[in-house]
This record gives sequence, C-alpha cells and structure tokens, in this order.
Amino acid sequence: MQQAATRIAIALSERCRSFFEILQQRICTALEEVDGVQRFNEDRWERAEGGGGLTRVMENGAVFEKAGVNTSTISGMMPEVIARKMNVTPGTFFVTGISLVIHPRSPMVPTVHANYRYFEKDDGDAWFGGGSDLTPYYPFDEDTVQFHATLKRACDAHEPSYYPRFKRWCDEYFFIKHRGETRGVGGIFFDYLRGDAEKVFSFVQSVGDVFIDSYLPVVRKRMHEPWGEHERNWQLIRRGRYVEFNLIYDRGTTFGLETGGRTESILMSLPPLVQWRYDMQPENDSREARLLEILKHPQEWVR
Amino acid sequence: MQQAATRIAIALSERCRSFFEILQQRICTALEEVDGVQRFNEDRWERAEGGGGLTRVMENGAVFEKAGVNTSTISGMMPEVIARKMNVTPGTFFVTGISLVIHPRSPMVPTVHANYRYFEKDDGDAWFGGGSDLTPYYPFDEDTVQFHATLKRACDAHEPSYYPRFKRWCDEYFFIKHRGETRGVGGIFFDYLRGDAEKVFSFVQSVGDVFIDSYLPVVRKRMHEPWGEHERNWQLIRRGRYVEFNLIYDRGTTFGLETGGRTESILMSLPPLVQWRYDMQPENDSREARLLEILKHPQEWVR
Repeated sequence: MQQAATRIAIALSERCRSFFEILQQRICTALEEVDGVQRFNEDRWERAEGGGGLTRVMENGAVFEKAGVNTSTISGMMPEVIARKMNVTPGTFFVTGISLVIHPRSPMVPTVHANYRYFEKDDGDAWFGGGSDLTPYYPFDEDTVQFHATLKRACDAHEPSYYPRFKRWCDEYFFIKHRGETRGVGGIFFDYLRGDAEKVFSFVQSVGDVFIDSYLPVVRKRMHEPWGEHERNWQLIRRGRYVEFNLIYDRGTTFGLETGGRTESILMSLPPLVQWRYDMQPENDSREARLLEILKHPQEWVR
Repeated sequence: MQQAATRIAIALSERCRSFFEILQQRICTALEEVDGVQRFNEDRWERAEGGGGLTRVMENGAVFEKAGVNTSTISGMMPEVIARKMNVTPGTFFVTGISLVIHPRSPMVPTVHANYRYFEKDDGDAWFGGGSDLTPYYPFDEDTVQFHATLKRACDAHEPSYYPRFKRWCDEYFFIKHRGETRGVGGIFFDYLRGDAEKVFSFVQSVGDVFIDSYLPVVRKRMHEPWGEHERNWQLIRRGRYVEFNLIYDRGTTFGLETGGRTESILMSLPPLVQWRYDMQPENDSREARLLEILKHPQEWVR
C-alpha cells in the first residue's frame, strides 16, 4: 500500500539557514581536501541581541594562506538608522547568510569571494542578495572564462536576464574609484532581489551550489604554476587594493562595522599579508601591466 | 649711516607655504641622518585644477622601513559637496600643508604621524588644522611622556588651554570604534582653529618646529633594542589597525580620496607590510596585552 507523502511546511527562513550551513560545511570540506595539510577551525559565537554564527577560518594552509567561510543568522529589532540606510521600514528583521573569502598562497591562484543571504522583515518584505567574484594576480583568460561560464549556466537555468544584469552590477559594485580599477575580473552581484521568494531561493541555491565548481578547478590548475619573489611582491601589493576596497567601499564591511557586527568575522576577509609601496607601476607589456589593463576595462568573458 | 629696515608684506598664505616646505626639508634631512643608509626620493606633482606638491618617500631604510613627508599647496574652486562637508560657504580656496607618516622597521620604535595645514577662503575665512601623534607597538612610558611633554611645552608657550584641549581631541579623533581602541598613545589634534591668524601661525610653527625633538630622541633610544619574529609579527598585526583607522575613519584620507586628491600621496601613510590574522589575542600580562590596556584607556601623560 502506498503512503501519501507527508509534507511539513518549514519556513523559508529556516530552509535558507539550513542551506547556507550545509553549503558552508561542503565548501570547507572541499577546500580542506585541496589543501591537504591544514584544516578549518570552528568559532561559534552568539549575539547578545539575538542570533549568532559560525566563523570557520583556515590559516597557513599549504594552498590556502587564509580562508574564511562564515555563516550567521541574526534577528532582532532593526535600528532606525539602519532601516534608513537600507531604504526599508524599521521593525524586527531576520537575516541568514554565508560569506567567504579565500586567499591562496600562490600568486598564480586567484582570490575568491562569495556571499549569499536572505533578509526578511516582520511586515512581510523579504529579499535575497549576494554574488561571487574572482580576483586574480596573474590572470589566465581561460580561468576567468571558466569562472564566469559556471556562474552564467547557474543563472541561465533560472532567468536569462540574470547573468548579464548581475555581471554588470558586479563590475560596477567592485570598482575602486580612487584607483580607477575593478577589484578583480568580476562575477555576479545582486541585492534586494524580491519577487517569488521560492523561485529566487531556488536560483540562490544554484549559484551557491556551483561555487565549488566555479573556483576549485582554477585552484587545481594553477596551484603548481611556478612563482618567485617577484610574483609574491606583486600579489602582496595587489592584496593592498583588496584591503582598500573592503575598508573604503564594501557595504557589507562598512555597514557591518558601523552597526556593531562581529569585527573579527567581518574582517576575516582581509588578506594575511599585504604590502604598500609608493607609486609602484608595472613594466610596460609585463603580465602585471596586462592585469591592470583588464581591471581598467571590464570585459565580456562569456556570451 | 644706518638704513631703515625695509619690510615687504608677504601674504600669510605664502609664509605658511614657505614654512611647511622648509620644515619638510629639515625633517627629511634629520631622518636621513638617523637612518644613515637610505635617502628620500622627490616626486614633484602638479594638479590640473591648480597647485601641486612635493611627495618625498624613503623606502627600505635601515631604520625607517617607509617614511613619507609631503607638502602640497592647492587652490581652486571648492566643489559644493566639499563645502557642505566642511561646513563652510563655497567659493575659491587655498590650502597649504605638510603631512608625514613614518613607519620604522623595528617594532621597538613607534610609528609617528604629523600634519599641519593652513586653509583660506576668498570670503576671508581662514583657519589652521593639524596635530601629531605616536603609535608604539611596544610602549615605553618614558618615550610617551617625552613625546607629549615636548608637544605640551610648545603649546603652553602660546596658550595654556591648547595642550589639554588638543590632547583630548586627539584621543577622541584617533579612536578605532570597531576595535574599542585608540590608534596609538595620542599627542595633539586640532582643526578649524581660527582667531588671530598671526598668533595661530606662530603656534603652528612652534608645534611644527618641535616635531624632530618630539620623535627623533625616541627613535635613537629604541632603534638598538633587540627584537625577533614574535615582536615583528605583533608589529605587522598592529599596523593592520593603522590601516583600518586610516581607510575607515581618517577624514584626511577618505576626504582626500573622495575629492580626487592624489591617491599615491594620500596613501603613502599606509605601512609597508601588514598582517591580518583571525582573532589574534595577546597572552595575559604580556607586553602586547599592556599595549592594548593603554589603547583601551587613554591616559594623562603629562600634567
């Protein structure tokens, strides 16, 4: 005799949280496997006003010099100043999300960032935000194409307008104005994505799920490329641009610090070692100059 | 036969500029003498809209890992957005100033910052701003006292209320909110100092003139203190706080970058090499813990 499937309604907020937490676990495991030496530690924290998170950081790995993969789920009363900044009405809120930044040791392996979150208010307003973007020090076009193509496939399966729109948004968002450069070769970025919440969640699951496939093949391909002091210096200087972007322009960072977010979890995004030299310019026609060309003129990597 | 002294009136703006440029020269020479190995380069630049500057940077010295001593003199039309931020009426403006940040190699020698400037508007409004502050990695009370006492003497010669007022302003200004710490052990800070311009200029000359005496004795005393990898790591981590303050809170930096200032001259303040580790806490009762105690509880160093 066949039994009717029993379906228990679980709130979207809980399903999002669960998705992000499982994704965190999967990503950490995949990164540990590639690294082969170091493991992620676990730092569980609570927020006095409600909620908490799990910050997972790997430092001094063989492949990954510093990698942070965080989840957090926060709820409470939204301060008026924040509501104004977010252009929403005040009230109680709930937010759950995953945020990661990976800084490989080798200058031949790009840094990557991804962040996905679900935001809900007591008046029923709810939206998703997030994205993922790549920051190479020595760019290989085929890697950039593979990263973008993987994201595009995940986007296209849901809505053909997503990739071109979110790709462009990413280039605009990760722009370091005082340098006239993008932070990296982009990816996707979106915020306040409302509409059919189930459909949007399904899209967010897809782009979250492909994170590993978008990035780890690039790592495996480039982690054995040779490099020396020259490349290391360039990487440390470029990491300085990453810091400049995150501390000056990144809304997640500045907003998080302003509103009393957990400093160490927010700033886990900063690179392990960074250099600032005065007016360092790459030689003409060098690989370093080529990176700057790309960062000054965002390109279409997949069509 | 005695000749009457011939006095030619020279505008205050020109005398300020001249004072700052000569001070720059004197400070660079004094620093080169202490360093003994490396010299300052000279980078003269012009601003399309009017004015320019001389950026002088020493990198990889024996004593000074990176030191920048800049002067600039800018004039032109003040954009409305800037006038609003500065709480003054728009119009043409003139500003001349000196700005320096010195990052020694040894963790036993503190970083120092000083900046003095004269601002003038076409409607006759004019003021001085500036200050000088010390950022040790391993604090020696007698050094901090000597630094503060030197500044206090220079202040007291002009106006007894200056030192206590500007010392407190400095502690308030150089506060890293998300860390609950001051950037260093302070010094003096003041802005929009109006009044009898000749008197204020005379005060600014005094505090500018004592810069060398406030700092170089500390350098000479500590440059031969022993240190190793442990102290170096702590210095690199603390330098991260310096970056956090400058890029997130420092008005000179954020304002300069926003208004199209010369990026490389503004960011010469950033340390040569910086480290960010996850949630690094010093051991109880260590010298590192003592630094944090001081930074969390600003003290009166001279009375």
